[in-house]
Amino acid sequence: MPQGQPSVVPDDGLTTRQRRNRPLVLVHTGTGKGKSTAAFGLALRAWTQGWPIGVFQFVKSAKWRVGEENALKVLGASGEGGTVAWHKMGEGWSWIQRAGDDGASAQQTNEWKAREGWEQVKRDLAAETYRLYVLDEFAYPLHWGWIDTDEVVAVLRDRPGTQHVVITGRNAPQALLDCADLVTDMTKVKHPMDAGQKGQKGIEW
Amino acid sequence: MPQGQPSVVPDDGLTTRQRRNRPLVLVHTGTGKGKSTAAFGLALRAWTQGWPIGVFQFVKSAKWRVGEENALKVLGASGEGGTVAWHKMGEGWSWIQRAGDDGASAQQTNEWKAREGWEQVKRDLAAETYRLYVLDEFAYPLHWGWIDTDEVVAVLRDRPGTQHVVITGRNAPQALLDCADLVTDMTKVKHPMDAGQKGQKGIEW
Repeated sequence: MPQGQPSVVPDDGLTTRQRRNRPLVLVHTGTGKGKSTAAFGLALRAWTQGWPIGVFQFVKSAKWRVGEENALKVLGASGEGGTVAWHKMGEGWSWIQRAGDDGASAQQTNEWKAREGWEQVKRDLAAETYRLYVLDEFAYPLHWGWIDTDEVVAVLRDRPGTQHVVITGRNAPQALLDCADLVTDMTKVKHPMDAGQKGQKGIEW
Repeated sequence: MPQGQPSVVPDDGLTTRQRRNRPLVLVHTGTGKGKSTAAFGLALRAWTQGWPIGVFQFVKSAKWRVGEENALKVLGASGEGGTVAWHKMGEGWSWIQRAGDDGASAQQTNEWKAREGWEQVKRDLAAETYRLYVLDEFAYPLHWGWIDTDEVVAVLRDRPGTQHVVITGRNAPQALLDCADLVTDMTKVKHPMDAGQKGQKGIEW
């Protein structure tokens, strides 16, 4: 257990315990590797605490995160820790009956799917469905303007109960960073791709 | 699956597949959060591939990483993916019969334990015991000079077979970064501790 001492003690009327257990918004951004892997690593801690975990994968390809998905589903089904609900945009969110993309361009469909995902996150936050939300690659639809960052910030700020939210992706908007409690920039120092080596199973997915 | 194209194609006589599957040394360093969580997130991918995983926790306190340890042990015992062997310096490495710290200072004992851990890693690398090694917080004993970085670099460079090694911790020595295939600096942008909030269960451990 970390023994660090905070450098300031806020005059917020909270006890150390109350302050310690405040729900957090965490953002992993930057161009380096580790943004999503750290978010799923965090899910291991939440799982051990018995927390219900909701994963929302805001990426087109369903091939990504297959390792994390398999592992977290096995954990969720083990009955030994928290539950895990896994939602994938790439295969159509589980709560949507049909993709509804007749006549729409691929980008329009992706925009629409991303917004539908966010609508479900809002419903779950209001209902306090999960205690940890992993919004994987959620920074992209914010950066592209598909989802309104100001609305996301307002919903996160006003969410009820004790719900932690971790958001990953490059180019997280400044307003999201401003509202977050913890921000880590995964800074690329060196990557095998720079030396001509492509991604490999077990490492990249 | 990532579709990125490398910016250079080396003249190394390897096919794309051979180059793709070269074993990697990964380093997660920097002052931000996510170094170890990303390493354990990586272990989820390795587990899904069915790879044997060896974790070596180079930290004094056995209270750290309890979430990751519980989760990975459940996964390892599930029979559905790879195996997981978890070794902790804080409780005395499992292969050491007695701590041998009679008359030694706490620091001498820690130095000795860290070196013993590295000796075991060397034995396992030579025997190709695991396919993924998580050397958690291993950058510290290197930074402090408890373990010789040049020796570590030589052992990593000459390791047989297909063994991936991920090393975490602040202040990773430059010689280690030079030998690594992938380096991410987890850069702290904002941390709850700065706002007077201490670490909490499910998030920090």
